[in-house]
Amino acid sequence: MVFKIGLLGLGTVGTGTVEILLDPQGRQPLLQELMLHRVGVRSLDKDRRVELPADLLTTDLNSIVTDPEIDLVVELMGGLEPARSLILQAIRAGKHVVTANKAVISRYSEEIFTAATEQGVYVMVEAAVAGGIPVIQPLKQCLGANRIHRVMGIVNGTTNYILTRMQREGADFAEVLADAQALGYAEADPTADVDGLDAADKIAILAALAFNGRIKLEEVYCEGIRKITATDITYADQLGFVIKLLAIAERDPQATADNDWLCVRVHPTLVAKTHPLATINQVYNAILIEGEPIGQVMFFGPGAGAGPTASAVVSDMLNIVGMLQAQGTGEAQAPVMHPLMSCTHQHYCQLSPLKELMTRFYARLITQDAPGVIGKLGTCFGDHQVSLESIVQIDSHGELAEIVVVTHQVREGNFHQALEEMQHLEVVEQIPGVLRVL
Amino acid sequence: MVFKIGLLGLGTVGTGTVEILLDPQGRQPLLQELMLHRVGVRSLDKDRRVELPADLLTTDLNSIVTDPEIDLVVELMGGLEPARSLILQAIRAGKHVVTANKAVISRYSEEIFTAATEQGVYVMVEAAVAGGIPVIQPLKQCLGANRIHRVMGIVNGTTNYILTRMQREGADFAEVLADAQALGYAEADPTADVDGLDAADKIAILAALAFNGRIKLEEVYCEGIRKITATDITYADQLGFVIKLLAIAERDPQATADNDWLCVRVHPTLVAKTHPLATINQVYNAILIEGEPIGQVMFFGPGAGAGPTASAVVSDMLNIVGMLQAQGTGEAQAPVMHPLMSCTHQHYCQLSPLKELMTRFYARLITQDAPGVIGKLGTCFGDHQVSLESIVQIDSHGELAEIVVVTHQVREGNFHQALEEMQHLEVVEQIPGVLRVL
Repeated sequence: MVFKIGLLGLGTVGTGTVEILLDPQGRQPLLQELMLHRVGVRSLDKDRRVELPADLLTTDLNSIVTDPEIDLVVELMGGLEPARSLILQAIRAGKHVVTANKAVISRYSEEIFTAATEQGVYVMVEAAVAGGIPVIQPLKQCLGANRIHRVMGIVNGTTNYILTRMQREGADFAEVLADAQALGYAEADPTADVDGLDAADKIAILAALAFNGRIKLEEVYCEGIRKITATDITYADQLGFVIKLLAIAERDPQATADNDWLCVRVHPTLVAKTHPLATINQVYNAILIEGEPIGQVMFFGPGAGAGPTASAVVSDMLNIVGMLQAQGTGEAQAPVMHPLMSCTHQHYCQLSPLKELMTRFYARLITQDAPGVIGKLGTCFGDHQVSLESIVQIDSHGELAEIVVVTHQVREGNFHQALEEMQHLEVVEQIPGVLRVL
Repeated sequence: MVFKIGLLGLGTVGTGTVEILLDPQGRQPLLQELMLHRVGVRSLDKDRRVELPADLLTTDLNSIVTDPEIDLVVELMGGLEPARSLILQAIRAGKHVVTANKAVISRYSEEIFTAATEQGVYVMVEAAVAGGIPVIQPLKQCLGANRIHRVMGIVNGTTNYILTRMQREGADFAEVLADAQALGYAEADPTADVDGLDAADKIAILAALAFNGRIKLEEVYCEGIRKITATDITYADQLGFVIKLLAIAERDPQATADNDWLCVRVHPTLVAKTHPLATINQVYNAILIEGEPIGQVMFFGPGAGAGPTASAVVSDMLNIVGMLQAQGTGEAQAPVMHPLMSCTHQHYCQLSPLKELMTRFYARLITQDAPGVIGKLGTCFGDHQVSLESIVQIDSHGELAEIVVVTHQVREGNFHQALEEMQHLEVVEQIPGVLRVL
């Protein structure tokens, strides 16, 4: 039985996908039943790394998503439009969809999965999160026995590369970013990566799967790595931490049956060097899932790149085709969707306000170098129920001293009230570094 | 639609499985369609951690595997018999099977999967390898786009615990083993763990899936950790390595289309401290998969324990039930098996003889402390095409010297010939430590 594929986009990942399809030997035998039927591109004239018969290529993308011969549409164009509209058109034409488009899925999952459920088609998104690392499918199909407490990870390779180099070279952010751009590890406009927006898209997708409810992307708290300095990295190192941009979705520990809130957020975080995520360096990604009864599992691998991402795309295609084979094509019964492969939730998860978050903090303060300063700071924290693990004067420059504070678990709102009050203390000159601690 | 479960065995993992089934709230909603119908136990009188209606329990295991009401048999008894016979009976009675029994699956996969394919039922074994870590399903369903080159990992928690403690405490094997036994981390008869047999079962299962062919367990080379000394661990540490018991299945790099040999083996291995597997300590397991185009992915988590293993068991149950729902129950068409969830290979993989393995070696030699010894050793290695990376005299005690050798990639057969010849050199007293290097 042959399944016909319509591919939208022949960029890096599209080319990687075609390379796998054209060279099935030694891979899963089911691959031989996938046939590339049409490939939608922006320009027919471009030189390409893969050779395809000229009549496979078209610039008319609409003709692909409505082609009655096509069983499965693979969207690898990226961007919001026309990707979103084409995905929806394909679904309404009864086609299954595989996409690597995290931006579309994190924003439009409601209309996309509602349409897919109505049409009885699968929409698979493994490649949208963490490139080649299997994480979407394990969450859907391997961890269903668990109550998931937390999903967190390093899901943006560019920022992990920058932070790794800052850590190793003692360099500042701007310097490493410029070099990463020159080397092609960061884009000319690095906003989506360094401001955490890409990671926010990904954690919104993971949270929806882990906690079985939709997530409003605009409610995900998002803080990037632009403000990280070489100084903070050095002090964190001395305290036994590395700084990582973490994307975290967790059930509020104070949640009750009626009040089942989540906290979903992206921010740079001090991670103890002994923690599994602390060892993930360079462009690698890793996702750690915590649940009951499994405890902790972690998935680690290449978070981007043509080959790894294409591996995830083709894996989704194989799963759909395997499923279609197993369901058969008989007309005797309406197909029922596989409950682990389809979207079964419709409600939106309630996200708790960040000020309610319980977390540890690291803060670096520049103060006057005078007796009693540490006492004043300690009292101010104490007045706001901020319990300290350590407060250390690291350095003094002339009349100024540099003080580093690490708190126990505190309410984020309380901590910020304490900082706010502290900024008005005469002895406090500046609070240049404030970071959460895992 | 309710699916009725027959459970064989109510030990640690069986109890963990029942706990999940009896408390589905907050887990995958599909769990609510699983109903525990019969539970087979050895004794009806035993006190148990879970409360079950008395009429659910029976000591008549045969009655479970032939019960016409039961859809799915879950075998968690362990041991070869009667587990193997009961699994086969269940399959022949048309029941799907979930098992955590690595010993049965690694030895009897041919008859079990042949029977399952004939009957059109699924046999799922996620819990047989690496406890709670999803690895079987990711191999079957998430990595099919890849040509797998190598699967390797730390798949035995007991030996990893022992090696971690030896490393941290500088203690010898016998001492840590005794303590691990007292603490319940090692069994009274530790043979299956410390001699690598348990790891061999697991790598045989993983190799069959990764390389899509059956594996003869008796052809898997297996060497345990009894001979590892505190001295070797210290020297390895100085050279930048830790010692781990690795289970490795890899395609022979010299393989051709006609001669597609595998090398499947278990042995203690020097692993560079910078390698992802070097950071896996205590009872944790990890499996690293290398393929094209994905590169490397690693799965890390708890390799044993009631909760994690039960998580894998229930995940398999959910996948079967999800599949059955999607296939429908109509009589109009014979069910086709999902090609990624069923066994599609029948041939046996050819395993290459260990002497053909290309690997690096570490060796520790006790020699006379005399000028020219290093020259004699170097010449002897050279005569057998064994190229050395380093040869260092570490220590001398009276008239004896301790010399540590690390080779480049060499043919295992050549290396052993060199050692054999060396043992007859007058200057060589003893070769107490020989280990492979990753």
